Amino acid sequence: MNNTFLSDFIMITNFKTIAFIILLIAVLFGVNIMSKKKVKFSTRMIVSTIAGLILGLIIQLVAGFPDNPGDVQWINEVNKWYGLIGYGFMDLLKMLVVPLIFVSIIRVIINMQAGENLGKLTVRSLLILLGTTTIAAVVGIVVGNLFKLGVSANVVESTNEIREITPVVDTLRGLLPSNPVSAMAEGNVVAVVIFAAFIGNSMKILNKKYSDVIKPVTDLVNGSYKIITSIAMTVIKLMPYAVVALLANTIAGRGVSAIKEVVEFIIALYLSIVIVFIIHLIIIAFLGINPFKYLKKVMEPLILAFTSRSSLGTLPVTIETLTDDVGVDNGIASFVGSLGSNIGMNGCAAIYPALMAVTLANMTGTTMDISFYGMLIVIIVIGSLGIAGLPGSATMAVSVAISGMGMGAYFPLAGGIIAIDPILDMGRTMLNVNGTMVTAVAVGKSFNKIDKEKLNKK
Amino acid sequence: MNNTFLSDFIMITNFKTIAFIILLIAVLFGVNIMSKKKVKFSTRMIVSTIAGLILGLIIQLVAGFPDNPGDVQWINEVNKWYGLIGYGFMDLLKMLVVPLIFVSIIRVIINMQAGENLGKLTVRSLLILLGTTTIAAVVGIVVGNLFKLGVSANVVESTNEIREITPVVDTLRGLLPSNPVSAMAEGNVVAVVIFAAFIGNSMKILNKKYSDVIKPVTDLVNGSYKIITSIAMTVIKLMPYAVVALLANTIAGRGVSAIKEVVEFIIALYLSIVIVFIIHLIIIAFLGINPFKYLKKVMEPLILAFTSRSSLGTLPVTIETLTDDVGVDNGIASFVGSLGSNIGMNGCAAIYPALMAVTLANMTGTTMDISFYGMLIVIIVIGSLGIAGLPGSATMAVSVAISGMGMGAYFPLAGGIIAIDPILDMGRTMLNVNGTMVTAVAVGKSFNKIDKEKLNKK
Amino acid sequence: MNNTFLSDFIMITNFKTIAFIILLIAVLFGVNIMSKKKVKFSTRMIVSTIAGLILGLIIQLVAGFPDNPGDVQWINEVNKWYGLIGYGFMDLLKMLVVPLIFVSIIRVIINMQAGENLGKLTVRSLLILLGTTTIAAVVGIVVGNLFKLGVSANVVESTNEIREITPVVDTLRGLLPSNPVSAMAEGNVVAVVIFAAFIGNSMKILNKKYSDVIKPVTDLVNGSYKIITSIAMTVIKLMPYAVVALLANTIAGRGVSAIKEVVEFIIALYLSIVIVFIIHLIIIAFLGINPFKYLKKVMEPLILAFTSRSSLGTLPVTIETLTDDVGVDNGIASFVGSLGSNIGMNGCAAIYPALMAVTLANMTGTTMDISFYGMLIVIIVIGSLGIAGLPGSATMAVSVAISGMGMGAYFPLAGGIIAIDPILDMGRTMLNVNGTMVTAVAVGKSFNKIDKEKLNKK
Repeated sequence: MNNTFLSDFIMITNFKTIAFIILLIAVLFGVNIMSKKKVKFSTRMIVSTIAGLILGLIIQLVAGFPDNPGDVQWINEVNKWYGLIGYGFMDLLKMLVVPLIFVSIIRVIINMQAGENLGKLTVRSLLILLGTTTIAAVVGIVVGNLFKLGVSANVVESTNEIREITPVVDTLRGLLPSNPVSAMAEGNVVAVVIFAAFIGNSMKILNKKYSDVIKPVTDLVNGSYKIITSIAMTVIKLMPYAVVALLANTIAGRGVSAIKEVVEFIIALYLSIVIVFIIHLIIIAFLGINPFKYLKKVMEPLILAFTSRSSLGTLPVTIETLTDDVGVDNGIASFVGSLGSNIGMNGCAAIYPALMAVTLANMTGTTMDISFYGMLIVIIVIGSLGIAGLPGSATMAVSVAISGMGMGAYFPLAGGIIAIDPILDMGRTMLNVNGTMVTAVAVGKSFNKIDKEKLNKK
Repeated sequence: MNNTFLSDFIMITNFKTIAFIILLIAVLFGVNIMSKKKVKFSTRMIVSTIAGLILGLIIQLVAGFPDNPGDVQWINEVNKWYGLIGYGFMDLLKMLVVPLIFVSIIRVIINMQAGENLGKLTVRSLLILLGTTTIAAVVGIVVGNLFKLGVSANVVESTNEIREITPVVDTLRGLLPSNPVSAMAEGNVVAVVIFAAFIGNSMKILNKKYSDVIKPVTDLVNGSYKIITSIAMTVIKLMPYAVVALLANTIAGRGVSAIKEVVEFIIALYLSIVIVFIIHLIIIAFLGINPFKYLKKVMEPLILAFTSRSSLGTLPVTIETLTDDVGVDNGIASFVGSLGSNIGMNGCAAIYPALMAVTLANMTGTTMDISFYGMLIVIIVIGSLGIAGLPGSATMAVSVAISGMGMGAYFPLAGGIIAIDPILDMGRTMLNVNGTMVTAVAVGKSFNKIDKEKLNKK
Repeated sequence: MNNTFLSDFIMITNFKTIAFIILLIAVLFGVNIMSKKKVKFSTRMIVSTIAGLILGLIIQLVAGFPDNPGDVQWINEVNKWYGLIGYGFMDLLKMLVVPLIFVSIIRVIINMQAGENLGKLTVRSLLILLGTTTIAAVVGIVVGNLFKLGVSANVVESTNEIREITPVVDTLRGLLPSNPVSAMAEGNVVAVVIFAAFIGNSMKILNKKYSDVIKPVTDLVNGSYKIITSIAMTVIKLMPYAVVALLANTIAGRGVSAIKEVVEFIIALYLSIVIVFIIHLIIIAFLGINPFKYLKKVMEPLILAFTSRSSLGTLPVTIETLTDDVGVDNGIASFVGSLGSNIGMNGCAAIYPALMAVTLANMTGTTMDISFYGMLIVIIVIGSLGIAGLPGSATMAVSVAISGMGMGAYFPLAGGIIAIDPILDMGRTMLNVNGTMVTAVAVGKSFNKIDKEKLNKK
């Protein structure tokens, strides 16, 4: 056999390579059996995480825990093949960014209510939700930098070129869509959002007089949204398979130290969540409500969110708690609750992508200056509107933020962290729900529609 | 304060920068108040033009009328910020080019009548309209070169590379859409037109037998057209704001000499209009009608067009004059009048973009050879079909022509001229209406449907 | 007259150039008259081929059969102008690739039947059809290389850079659509297919519960498909005109040796067809049927296919023969017959594009290694799904394969061969029909639904 050819083309030169490819296929088969036996998605995710961890450790063990796993040829080969599964999954996630953002922004704007009070209600709810989203993004950025996430895993040769500071004016103009098709082709998320916003706005205006003329477009937007959402769901369903490959790939390729990095990420995320949670409570205090009393009353939805990892599933409990225990007007509670399950998710759509962007920038030696941070916050906040109500919204939020920062090519590096998603998701979801409830209280307060009696009742 | 950081990032190092930014905001506020008080759009445009002129002069005054305003740092900073408003507006205009051309060309073709005589009528009207459009484009190019428009304002370093002459055959093939999506992404206007024409043509053919199958597409095209037209209207409404920033930016950045350039442009435009007008009259003479008699009879719609700056608003008077005074058959007058208010506008869609393209080419040191001119005429004529019946069609025509010539990146340089649009619009509109009337007379003559009695009546 | 200008811009410096341009126009006029007199398309194609051949020979004759026709300036000029017609036609073909593939793949998936047995029937039919397509593609590649097609006509300077072997893993990942819009702009056929497949799959799933929501999208897909098919038909109708220019251009520019190349291509194609035909018979033998008996029974549809060059036109005879003479169950015969007239055409969609890709690669000095071949087979097989049921499907298949291989820019070089399409089409169509019949027999056998009595009857 011609070894050079094999190593260059098929990337299999060693019996170990074949063995580990077969092992991976066997594990994926196991995951598939779980899926057929209708094991819950979250259980499958946890099993996959453990399987990936073990697989990576076995590879390290067989290789004798080398200092530089990247120098061992067969590990590189195994990783190429594992990467095909894992990174291919990441490519599919990226594929959805442009059509998803485009269609869902149009849809969000068309469906905004225009009634008198409803208008005020919407504006106030949005402002507060996006405000807390901004805060959460900032916290994520700060904590990510304090932890120096990703620095030790700098896998891309740092380019020596010093990036010049881009003036904020130029950055802002770069976000404008001077050609919508090229904006889409380049994955310029903000430009796509602006173009979509113009379309949505015009459709909203035309809907009064010319609803019959634009109806085909409206129907198309709704239909496309349904389809893209469904594609997203299909792709997300592949996550348990990808997780095995991604985690094994990470540990095999970067050594046991990779585990340390991932653990650091978990700690950084949970620390950020705690900080934003405290900020939430401070807001509650500013609204004239005892934060401890508030905390005691909302314990139930928070625990449910933490364990179920579903904002939407928790929604009925959230609304009931807000109405019966906190005393928020039922209309407001329902409205803000529904809105907040979709838009401005503090955990999933702000802290998480912020931490991830910082990690990737460190990994790749990307210079982070004020224009980087400003841009990141803008993209996260705008993005938090666009990923409304999607399955796997946290992973989507990361995909959008990374693409929007022009780091789409580095996205696969996030694989190691994407792989441990369930552990991260618990805290994130809890924070989402709390953000929604704080917003509901603030909006209720602003309309003077909080029932003191219920609030003070034990 | 770290001045380097501020100058590099926020571009504010001087109290004067802040002062002038605040001054601009104040002026824009004033423009907004006019808008809220429902001041007429044209009045707002004139006020904005004057305000921008004064603002630019004040900046020059404060800087002591420097020889090279570009060397004064705070003027550069002010201009960056002013440019964000002004050039941002130009970006939004450019954004509309591809979707607009694509959808409207399909729509124009679908809606073409296919009746027997109506077919002949359409073809003849189109040929004459596009013929006069071509003449007007040529006149614009010649006059623009005689005036050396933009030469003194050469703002872009002339690249020394001598552009080779592109054979006409290669130019023609470059216009073909070998991939419609990349043609759209690159803003290749003619390729988009050709692709759209294929679609429109096929839809027209299928409409006979399979109208139910393609109805969703037809409806979508109509709906999208409505939406894009509405977006164009939204963007055009921002023009008074942009005008202030653009004119102030131009004068501040290029000194008082910029005013001279703009005035030269105005003179060149009006000279071109007069020349084409004379050509119109010569055509009338060739048709066997005394041009002076014709002129006397059509004075009313011409004056109305000049003062109202609206071809469409003038249309009823145009048709009435053509029928009652010139003796053109009422059906032909109505048909050509409606067509000519949309297609082949001699002033807005031919002279104006031609002058602008020449100006921009001179400004940027772009070599203009015969392939440049040939291409420009083709794009202007084709473009004059695509911008049919749009608000702000003259500005759109410039946007289309500049993008089509691959000079889209230079489009913002046109800001100084875009800013004085109202002055230009009066002459352009008058010429549009006269072109329509000449076409109506020629078509009427060709069908032998001109009432000599009415024509000779005083 | 300024000769330099003329030669550089208009490419006319010689009386001969003008004469041959006029001659071409005259011939095209003649072709147009045939079209108006409703001469059959195939007759027009043959006449055009002969006309192009003669025109090319006359040019060679006038030039005195030079060794290097490329050194004669007036031949170059004539060829530039002839190329505008011929290669312009090729550009229009390329234009259709992306929208066609995108829409038709979605449509194919939506329309797949999901019934129990129907599902099995579909899967088995598809597998066998695509299996024979793969075999045919491999045969085409092997024969093309044995004949060294295109090597002698190496028209593009061979670039000395040695292309590195791309690992198969990287090739596979490169096929994934990480941004659908840029995939379309780059003409990445496989990525477009994958994205379309995700859309089609989701629409199929949603169709059960949410058919009303996605109906606008379904209708749009069907309408667009109708329109694109109609555009394809419009473009294909131009083929007789293009053929004259392409063949004359080929012979004029490459000398009489070009005829030799084209003849070699014809021989290679028919040899490949014979080889695949023998493989078909071997499959029949493996299915337990005497291949000679089979051959005698299916002679009628094969001859009809060869002379009529229409798989679809032959379909009724194909089904009747399968049912009455070979004894295949009528349902299966109808189903596979219909499917096979559209999908997995062995001749048109496999051998032909394979040979063409090898020829172009040789012509342009493109290195062909295992990743090239692997990729080519994948693209041909996937493409054979996407060009389903189109007019001029063989030419389309070539267009898709060449674009997919990233050799879209070289496509025009195929002109000389495209020009003799009718001669190639006879064998290709015959093989398509035989492939369909073999599939029907295999599927019938697998369901044990072949009537032995009918089969053994004489």
